[in-house]
Amino acid sequence: MQTTLPFRQAFEDYMNEHAFTAAPRELYQPINYIMNLGGKRMRPIMLLMGYSLFKDDFKQALPAAYAVEIFHNFSLVHDDMMDEAPVRRGQPTVHEKWNMSTGILSGDAMLVQAYEYLLELEDKSNLAAIIKTFNRFAIEVCEGQQYDMNFEQRNDVTIEEYLKMIELKTSVLLAGAMKIGALIAKADTQSVKHIYEFGRNVGLAFQIQDDYLDTFGDPAKFGKKVGGDIAQNKKTYLILKALEVANPEQRQQLEDLMNCKPKDEQAKIQTVMQLLENLNIPELTAQKKLAYQKTAYQHLEAIEVENARKQPIRAIAEYLLERDM
Amino acid sequence: MQTTLPFRQAFEDYMNEHAFTAAPRELYQPINYIMNLGGKRMRPIMLLMGYSLFKDDFKQALPAAYAVEIFHNFSLVHDDMMDEAPVRRGQPTVHEKWNMSTGILSGDAMLVQAYEYLLELEDKSNLAAIIKTFNRFAIEVCEGQQYDMNFEQRNDVTIEEYLKMIELKTSVLLAGAMKIGALIAKADTQSVKHIYEFGRNVGLAFQIQDDYLDTFGDPAKFGKKVGGDIAQNKKTYLILKALEVANPEQRQQLEDLMNCKPKDEQAKIQTVMQLLENLNIPELTAQKKLAYQKTAYQHLEAIEVENARKQPIRAIAEYLLERDM
Repeated sequence: MQTTLPFRQAFEDYMNEHAFTAAPRELYQPINYIMNLGGKRMRPIMLLMGYSLFKDDFKQALPAAYAVEIFHNFSLVHDDMMDEAPVRRGQPTVHEKWNMSTGILSGDAMLVQAYEYLLELEDKSNLAAIIKTFNRFAIEVCEGQQYDMNFEQRNDVTIEEYLKMIELKTSVLLAGAMKIGALIAKADTQSVKHIYEFGRNVGLAFQIQDDYLDTFGDPAKFGKKVGGDIAQNKKTYLILKALEVANPEQRQQLEDLMNCKPKDEQAKIQTVMQLLENLNIPELTAQKKLAYQKTAYQHLEAIEVENARKQPIRAIAEYLLERDM
Repeated sequence: MQTTLPFRQAFEDYMNEHAFTAAPRELYQPINYIMNLGGKRMRPIMLLMGYSLFKDDFKQALPAAYAVEIFHNFSLVHDDMMDEAPVRRGQPTVHEKWNMSTGILSGDAMLVQAYEYLLELEDKSNLAAIIKTFNRFAIEVCEGQQYDMNFEQRNDVTIEEYLKMIELKTSVLLAGAMKIGALIAKADTQSVKHIYEFGRNVGLAFQIQDDYLDTFGDPAKFGKKVGGDIAQNKKTYLILKALEVANPEQRQQLEDLMNCKPKDEQAKIQTVMQLLENLNIPELTAQKKLAYQKTAYQHLEAIEVENARKQPIRAIAEYLLERDM
């Protein structure tokens, strides 16, 4: 994506210059491994864009961009252990390649290193506010992961609870990253609030879209296996919305399907998809995404900087939320 | 201990006022559980004493004292998982009482909460230096734990490496806690260095003493089972020193003993103890402890504050290092 290129390049350069090379290597090697498994670097790029909305020299914000990317990867290492996931981005996860102790300890060291990079910011005059913002999403991501695990054991999760969970688990990190960028640029209080709400709503729209694409996405374009959520009986927005709008008979059918692990996985996926379509879920989901997207743009519009400065942020939001639904 | 009473009381009050009550309870309940398993609260008390050396109103430093105690307990939760320890202070460990996911996630939340309490300090003028100090011991404790795990797989650990490991794993937290206290009190640079070195050397002396007591301590006074280190083939200071001063025959005998899990554990413990006594290890270990203790006191003496202010710190060091050797 053209617009993100200067941010991404500067970020990758900074990352490479600050690879983890200290001893003991058993602790730091896994950190370099997970940090270099790839990924779109969306969170650090959006932090740098949050800064660039208000100031030009975005390289000032690189240490904080690195901090949020380290945090994100820390959460991947620990979440993969809790989810017992053996593969991440086509490669073995840290606890799989090494062992559980390495996963725990290298993850812990990453969390501390994230704070260490926040201290690398040159201007420390609003450091407390920056760390406060970091702490907020850090604790919320933990809470979101706990709710996610709790929901696996429950059959009465409401849409409201689900939306709160995905907000905590994914949106607040995007929102907090952009807010930190704005704080480093010394943006005014109102602008900081708006950029946070922009990021939060983009994150929610993105997650709703992700739920949609997992079931109805074009297999050629969607990275993961389409139908995976249904196969795993995940209570996504689609399923929860379906349970809400279904008549008692349809609800029973859906609940029965969600409680079974059939031999013919494909047949189950097809049946659930048909049921979702009958209930107009694709359209209802698109509406929900659009509502978040609209709120996000309203917050972006409300920020009082010249329009041209908002262009990269609009472009990345379009890129993130562009998929046909 | 009389001298610590006002510090301990104020700390326990602060802790109780700031118990973790937020939702989801599955995340926060284990935090309250581990924080209330007891312990001497030595690290927060020494932080408050580091402050009191320079200023009177030590309650200013309570949020930071809480931060180091939360960090210490975080490290216990994660270390107990790595060590597969089922019991801590006579009670089930967090991952044993709940599960591995809870241990990982509640631990992570504790680490973030520790930083959150650092931000609760009223005077934020040297917050960066305080967090820097916190980060340093936090990362060093991770490194120490990794070295400790590495050493279990090695048969050629040197005394120097062992001392570095115990410094990272235990002393730097004591040292850093006292330094943070001094930083909050705005002590001068030289005093801050001396208090750090005092804490570091007390920590090393304490750990050497702990190694000694595990084998030669009075079972009535020593909290843990005497001989445990020998039974578990732990390469403590005693064993490493013995390997250094032993003749080839004695060394071979000790290595053979260290590589076996005999049916009669007590006989093995007795044989190793006799060998250590023949090699004068109790005396050599006492000398090592005394050397650290002496260095610690030199640093305390070098701090230019009135003598009376040092009295509580002297008292706690004597309490920690009082055991006959």
